[in-house]
This record gives sequence, structure tokens and C-alpha cells, in this order.
Amino acid sequence: MQHPTLALIGFGAFGRLTADLLKAHCRILICDPSEPARTAARHAGLRVISLPEVAEADIVLLCLPLPQFGQTLSALAPHLRPGQLVADVASVKSAPAALMQNLLPDHVELLATHPMFGPQSAAAGTRGLQLVLCPLRGGSWRRRAAFLRKTLGLRLLITTPDQHDRDAARTQGLTHLLARALRDLGPAPKLRTRSFELLDQAFAMVRDDAPEVFEAVTRDNPHVAPLQARLADLLAAASG
Amino acid sequence: MQHPTLALIGFGAFGRLTADLLKAHCRILICDPSEPARTAARHAGLRVISLPEVAEADIVLLCLPLPQFGQTLSALAPHLRPGQLVADVASVKSAPAALMQNLLPDHVELLATHPMFGPQSAAAGTRGLQLVLCPLRGGSWRRRAAFLRKTLGLRLLITTPDQHDRDAARTQGLTHLLARALRDLGPAPKLRTRSFELLDQAFAMVRDDAPEVFEAVTRDNPHVAPLQARLADLLAAASG
Repeated sequence: MQHPTLALIGFGAFGRLTADLLKAHCRILICDPSEPARTAARHAGLRVISLPEVAEADIVLLCLPLPQFGQTLSALAPHLRPGQLVADVASVKSAPAALMQNLLPDHVELLATHPMFGPQSAAAGTRGLQLVLCPLRGGSWRRRAAFLRKTLGLRLLITTPDQHDRDAARTQGLTHLLARALRDLGPAPKLRTRSFELLDQAFAMVRDDAPEVFEAVTRDNPHVAPLQARLADLLAAASG
Repeated sequence: MQHPTLALIGFGAFGRLTADLLKAHCRILICDPSEPARTAARHAGLRVISLPEVAEADIVLLCLPLPQFGQTLSALAPHLRPGQLVADVASVKSAPAALMQNLLPDHVELLATHPMFGPQSAAAGTRGLQLVLCPLRGGSWRRRAAFLRKTLGLRLLITTPDQHDRDAARTQGLTHLLARALRDLGPAPKLRTRSFELLDQAFAMVRDDAPEVFEAVTRDNPHVAPLQARLADLLAAASG
């Protein structure tokens, strides 16, 4: 089987992780207007392309922060050819799904995804990490997903963009907000139980995430704020 | 070296764990007025004693809930002999320390302790688990503590009852309250990151603790309520 060609639109932290994980299995093209990113890609031995060259790719993966989606998708749209699969990896799913559906031509297949991991959690290997898939248009995502499951050992979770955002508000948004609130409470004492050590380890993972990730999983997800208010109320009222 | 005699006053969950952990190293006596507890002790091959027989012990360990301290210490006091070490294992330290200092005779040594583990966390072994010690009177606790460090692999943390209670409010009180607040938010979705899985695992450990433990580490610790209110405020205000 011939290796598919994968164009990464955006070569930030997640684009680099994707290239690392898939370079043995795909021909990888990097499209990023930032000169440091282009230099980093060349240093990694990857081919840097201009936007029109995405036509060469079988899969176009958007590794962009949500605020850049509108402009980038409009610029990308004229260069896409029929049958390509366009996917994203943003931390919320309803907004990017709507943008892809509205701004990209009907002749491309669409898949919204959320890899529930980043460079830090994938450093120990990808086996067992979760990849959320929200199929939007076309069916070729199935064999791409099966390939990722087999090759990287990812656990696949198929859902809708709306359900993703509701669930991620709970598991990811609240976790980031709790990590921040606990950090603001001041340093934790040495006195600790085993459960507290696990908590501390978990919150440390989250605190090390890039600020863009924090913004994306909290502010960009409309389901977070009401849940945050509810948890704050429950916490204030909790008693023995 | 002859095995010391250890009298456990109270044979609930923690008394049983202590007997299991130390029966190879101590002659163990059980003093508990409850008939089911006495039966359980006999089934475990342990000698059940009446209160006056605590005079036989080198170490008297109070494995009681805080509300039972006043009455039990008053009943115990006349039977203690000079040079015995009396210690407790309650989840807060200022209140039991004051009760031991006020109600027990000057001729016994006193040590307040808080094992930062229970039957569940100790099930995988005690190595690396924390034992908090607040020396109150006398110096024989040093060799007893050194023995526990060597034999059970416990990490010792020496502090004062007041500092213990302030620190435990943060690491133990808040953890239990957060576990309860998150439980009341409803079941967690399948969608999750590695950090969320760690959190879930940590909170599950805490949720499985006995209700008395929850009461003891939240309601009985006066430093918890103000910290709880502050964390609720920080959480409500946290934003991207």
C-alpha cells in the first residue's frame, strides 16, 4: 500500500507531534506562513509547501488555533480538489465543524477530530490515548481512523461536535479551571495522601499545557461557564 | 530485642489495619467495648483485654473517632502507668492533642500522629506512604518512629498539630470536598485525557473512604471551611 500524503496546515506544537507520530507512515507536507515554523520543518527534514500545493495531499490536517480558522479556510478552499479528506484537531468541535462545513467546497470530505493528548501525554507513548472523531461528510475517515487505532494504539471515540463540547467542558474545561484555582490558592504542603499525590500529578500535567490550550478548552467552549458556576456552587455548599 | 506490647484502643477499620501491619513486630492487645469488634479481634487471633489491662502495654494507640476521645481518655487515664507512650491516629491533630494533654497523666509520654493512608491505599503496600508525627511529650517516639520507617517503609513528617491541621485542610479536606462536588455534578463522560483519568482515579479513592473519614477531614478541621470558600471563589472567577 502506498503511503498517503498528509499536508499539515500549521506547524505548532501539535503539528510537530503529528509529524513525529506519522512520518513513518505518511509523506508529510508542511504549510505554515511563519518563518520560524518553516525553518523548524526544514530542520526536521520535512517538505515545506505553499498553500496551492495542498492539492497534492490525500489528507489535509488543520493544526491551527480556532481564531485562525476563518481566514485560513477561506484561503485554502480554492486549492482543494475533489475527494480530499480535510480534518482539524481543535479542542472544541462545534465551531470548527461549522466553519469547515460553511467555508470548504462540497467536493471534499470533512472530519472534525480532537486528539485528547498533546506532546506531554504522548511522550510516554500513544497507546491507549483517546482520539475523538466527529464525522461530518464522506466515509473515507473510517479506514484512516482504523489505521491510527492499529498503528498508534489510539482509542477511538465517535461522537457529534455538540456532544463532544458538552463532554469536554466537564473533563477538560473544568480540569484546567480547577488546576488554575488550586494554583492560585498557593503552593501545596508536603503533607499528602496517595490520592492527593495523584491529583497533584494530574493538575501538574494540565498546568504545563500551553496558554492557547487553556484558552481553547475553557473560553472557546460555551458549555464550560455554566458548568464552572455549578461546580463552584456545589463546592461552596459541600459539607460533612 | 523483645517485641513491644501494643494496646489498640478501638478495633475499627484503622485498628484492624494497624494490627495487620504490626502483628509480626508487636504483641498486640485489643480494647474495644463493641462486641462485634471483640469477636473480630478474637477471630484474627488477637488477645482482647479490658481497660485496666492497658497497663501491660508499652504503647497505647488510640484508634478512635474524635467524638469518643473525651470519654475514652477519662476512663483510660487511671490505668496508665509511668513511661508508657500514648499515641492517636485521628485525622485532625489540634483537638486530640489538647485532649490527650489535658486528660492523661503527666507520667505518660504523648505523641499525636496522622497516618496519611488507610486500608485502601495501604493495600498495595506501605512503602512510601506518609506518617505525620506531632511529638507532644517525651522522647521515646523517636525509636518507635525509626522502627516504622525501616520496617514499613513509611515516610515520616514531623510537624505541630496546628501546622498539620492547616496543611491537611488543603491536601485532604479540599480533596474530599472536591470529590463530593464533582460526584454531585453527575457521572463523568467517556471522553477523557490522561490527566482527567488520573483525577478520576484519585477522586475515586477518596469517594470510597468511610463516611467518618469524610466528616473527620472536613467538618472536624476548622481550617477547611475558609479554604473551601476561597477555592470556590477562585474557581468561579477562573477564566481564560
